Amino acid sequence: MAEGMSFPTSLGTSTADEIRLLGQDLTADLMGKVGFGELAFWLVALRRPTPSETRVFEAVLVALADHGFTPTAIAARLTYLSAPDSLQGALAAGLLGGGSRFLGVTEDCGMYLHEALEGRDPPTDDAGWDALALEVVTATRAEGKYVPGLGHPVHKVQDPRTPVLIGIASDEGLRGPHLQLFEAIGRVHEQVLGRKLPLNGAGVCGAALADLGLPVELLRGFALLARAAGLLGQLAEERRRPIGMDAYLTVDRNAVYVDPND
Amino acid sequence: MAEGMSFPTSLGTSTADEIRLLGQDLTADLMGKVGFGELAFWLVALRRPTPSETRVFEAVLVALADHGFTPTAIAARLTYLSAPDSLQGALAAGLLGGGSRFLGVTEDCGMYLHEALEGRDPPTDDAGWDALALEVVTATRAEGKYVPGLGHPVHKVQDPRTPVLIGIASDEGLRGPHLQLFEAIGRVHEQVLGRKLPLNGAGVCGAALADLGLPVELLRGFALLARAAGLLGQLAEERRRPIGMDAYLTVDRNAVYVDPND
Amino acid sequence: MAEGMSFPTSLGTSTADEIRLLGQDLTADLMGKVGFGELAFWLVALRRPTPSETRVFEAVLVALADHGFTPTAIAARLTYLSAPDSLQGALAAGLLGGGSRFLGVTEDCGMYLHEALEGRDPPTDDAGWDALALEVVTATRAEGKYVPGLGHPVHKVQDPRTPVLIGIASDEGLRGPHLQLFEAIGRVHEQVLGRKLPLNGAGVCGAALADLGLPVELLRGFALLARAAGLLGQLAEERRRPIGMDAYLTVDRNAVYVDPND
Amino acid sequence: MAEGMSFPTSLGTSTADEIRLLGQDLTADLMGKVGFGELAFWLVALRRPTPSETRVFEAVLVALADHGFTPTAIAARLTYLSAPDSLQGALAAGLLGGGSRFLGVTEDCGMYLHEALEGRDPPTDDAGWDALALEVVTATRAEGKYVPGLGHPVHKVQDPRTPVLIGIASDEGLRGPHLQLFEAIGRVHEQVLGRKLPLNGAGVCGAALADLGLPVELLRGFALLARAAGLLGQLAEERRRPIGMDAYLTVDRNAVYVDPND
Repeated sequence: MAEGMSFPTSLGTSTADEIRLLGQDLTADLMGKVGFGELAFWLVALRRPTPSETRVFEAVLVALADHGFTPTAIAARLTYLSAPDSLQGALAAGLLGGGSRFLGVTEDCGMYLHEALEGRDPPTDDAGWDALALEVVTATRAEGKYVPGLGHPVHKVQDPRTPVLIGIASDEGLRGPHLQLFEAIGRVHEQVLGRKLPLNGAGVCGAALADLGLPVELLRGFALLARAAGLLGQLAEERRRPIGMDAYLTVDRNAVYVDPND
Repeated sequence: MAEGMSFPTSLGTSTADEIRLLGQDLTADLMGKVGFGELAFWLVALRRPTPSETRVFEAVLVALADHGFTPTAIAARLTYLSAPDSLQGALAAGLLGGGSRFLGVTEDCGMYLHEALEGRDPPTDDAGWDALALEVVTATRAEGKYVPGLGHPVHKVQDPRTPVLIGIASDEGLRGPHLQLFEAIGRVHEQVLGRKLPLNGAGVCGAALADLGLPVELLRGFALLARAAGLLGQLAEERRRPIGMDAYLTVDRNAVYVDPND
Repeated sequence: MAEGMSFPTSLGTSTADEIRLLGQDLTADLMGKVGFGELAFWLVALRRPTPSETRVFEAVLVALADHGFTPTAIAARLTYLSAPDSLQGALAAGLLGGGSRFLGVTEDCGMYLHEALEGRDPPTDDAGWDALALEVVTATRAEGKYVPGLGHPVHKVQDPRTPVLIGIASDEGLRGPHLQLFEAIGRVHEQVLGRKLPLNGAGVCGAALADLGLPVELLRGFALLARAAGLLGQLAEERRRPIGMDAYLTVDRNAVYVDPND
Repeated sequence: MAEGMSFPTSLGTSTADEIRLLGQDLTADLMGKVGFGELAFWLVALRRPTPSETRVFEAVLVALADHGFTPTAIAARLTYLSAPDSLQGALAAGLLGGGSRFLGVTEDCGMYLHEALEGRDPPTDDAGWDALALEVVTATRAEGKYVPGLGHPVHKVQDPRTPVLIGIASDEGLRGPHLQLFEAIGRVHEQVLGRKLPLNGAGVCGAALADLGLPVELLRGFALLARAAGLLGQLAEERRRPIGMDAYLTVDRNAVYVDPND
């Protein structure tokens, strides 16, 4: 650190009369020419997605944007109720729930499939995929772990997002190995686990993002980006038709004191 | 609160086999058919934007997504360095800097123009706009307040985003009263303030968003959404080519103890 | 920035065999010798509080630590439910509600009293305090603003914390001008506002902190520190006897779709 | 959820004229009578600590409160620079760095020792502790994992906090099995790892907190509470003698653009 100190970046830099981003001229090459979803992809992947890739990518973001009164949406609304002066705080509070349990499945599923595929030649037919899926699910079960992307508390038979996203990826020629393995897991897991579970939407989104070549360690980030838009919608609605105060009072007025030693 | 307790929403709801969002069927009507920027607009405005509106809106998001090593980007990277297990925490830390000073200009400027226009018939020619701008800037000056959207630490003569965004809005027939008043402020403020300042990019974004009819109290939210994509890019780069440790050590190794009573 | 770059601090610094904090040797002078509340005071005020000051200061922190199922406590619990892997995220989410509305009164009240006292000789008897209070409340009313620290949604007649904290400050010889003005406001405001409101606990805490000489712009910070302890208690209880899932389901299961155009 | 809906808690509840916390009357039993550190312990452990326990507990909090320009302190200051209107956001941003890497050692070490001791009779002499430590370190090494609490980037020979905290615990009769096992690890690890590393301060704090009977899954929470006080000190100093702008400019002005394909 001294004379030679430097901080390398391929993202935004600017001079008095030019702003550059990703090696492009922001105003001449990007504004009005690149969609927001496209840019988000580009910022992480360092390459502009094709129109087909953009369509699949944005379908994923749309699928993940809002799920109504999730714990994260309620947390954001309660924070906005308490601190209406800080929209950024309410949004951040909502995103902080984007962890392992409610929003992590996208990343967990993408990583799981990615690891299962690593160092292998992908099968060339459904029988091959089924055999691989069976091997993978059996191994996971043997380790006492769970297979991510299976089951959903509300969509107990089928998650409506799953076939639709697979269809979009298929139309665009982007139904790659992660989606194919995930589908095969959907066909074979019952043999190992003893019961049929639906492939959930968060999981299929992870598989689709992995097929787009996005880094699997950052898939949670795309779920968070999608959720940022959803939370903005939640906060706009909280201004228009608030529920935060009622949610809070419902809990507080039904508080029951319990002896700490019980 | 009791039997009749209910929490109204127009956003996401779901049943065992359907997911609805904004009154649409998520899988049949939205996925693969609506872009992510379009959906973000829709979630707040409760109406689908036209293609022209979407182009202006996404140009704004693209303009605001990343400005390189801003305090927020560095904060996000340092948080990721400390807690690499929690991507959501690093993203949230970055967004928490989206307050009054570095990211607030978009909202401040949109609100300022909105209030100036409230209850008036918009002028019909440049002379009329100039007269209104002069009145507004003079009044602001008299109150000892500053006019938001003027000046930039780096782009001292012209912010390259300003003419480009005005051009895009103009092409799309969306150069409305907020942008026109902002442009007029750009022409006349020197008469009042005694020096010529550029209209900055954050300000022109606020004016453009206000012209799209988005609620001015939430404009900061769109800057935050744009920044969420930029921060994701920053965190992806921090994984690929980290600077957080160097940034931290540069500060820590140059720490100098000062007597607290000095 | 270059050779001469330096970052001054009076807080923590360390060498291979010593850690210094506030100009003290951490291990020889502080650990085991200074209480945690004392250190928190010292870190902001840059001087060690006296035992009397510590007692008042800690009584304030104890008073503000936990108020049960507040919006911030529920937000922290919901975040922990969603992301149990990140205790720091749940704690941060809870603190983010420490804004203008539910937790800001302490700071608002301290600042209000501070500004009212600035540049004046404090009165020497109750009649003098009452006259000043009357003047201040009348002026606030005339500006259409509200007097911070008056009224409480639950403690409609008297907030039990108010007389107790004044008593502690009095016992310790620390009932200074901020508390005295606040008490006088309690006596006279009915003449101006037309109704009698209790002096609330958050307000009296702000007055007491201001009397301790702590910087009024940072009083919210002490409320946040107190709340950090309370939120830790809430999260410990969420592990032991969870309510987050029930709180979430209560809202989600009672969601009612409303047409966005209504 | 309906008639019978209830949310149990042993923490704060209130009625019109009483506030209860932990089964105590807040104003009669706690304010002015319980220190802040005592209360923080009580809120998690559900029992009031003894004076000896309080002394060890507060020594730990004091030890962990501030380490100068850590990544978390810098992140908090940069956030405050960007959004000075939201002290809670700056504090939250700083705490969000309290994850696995810089602040997690306390919890990791406490848990590690706790698991090693589970289901065993603690040894009765140093030879017994050394044998157990050897077994534990050998097993950890065999699994390819690292032993938490060993080594420090600055205190390469001895962390000055370690002997002091052990001394305080010893004086108070609270040098329990976790500390004793940790000390034994300090004596024997060189035999297994091939080099001598110091027992670090964060680790010894984790051992001491575990010996106090605090839940090991929440030890990170106490490190966060301690850090909340330290961050408040950092933010107070940022107001008084700011370094955020210089830290930001040091990085930004030394940014070097790198082709994304390199």
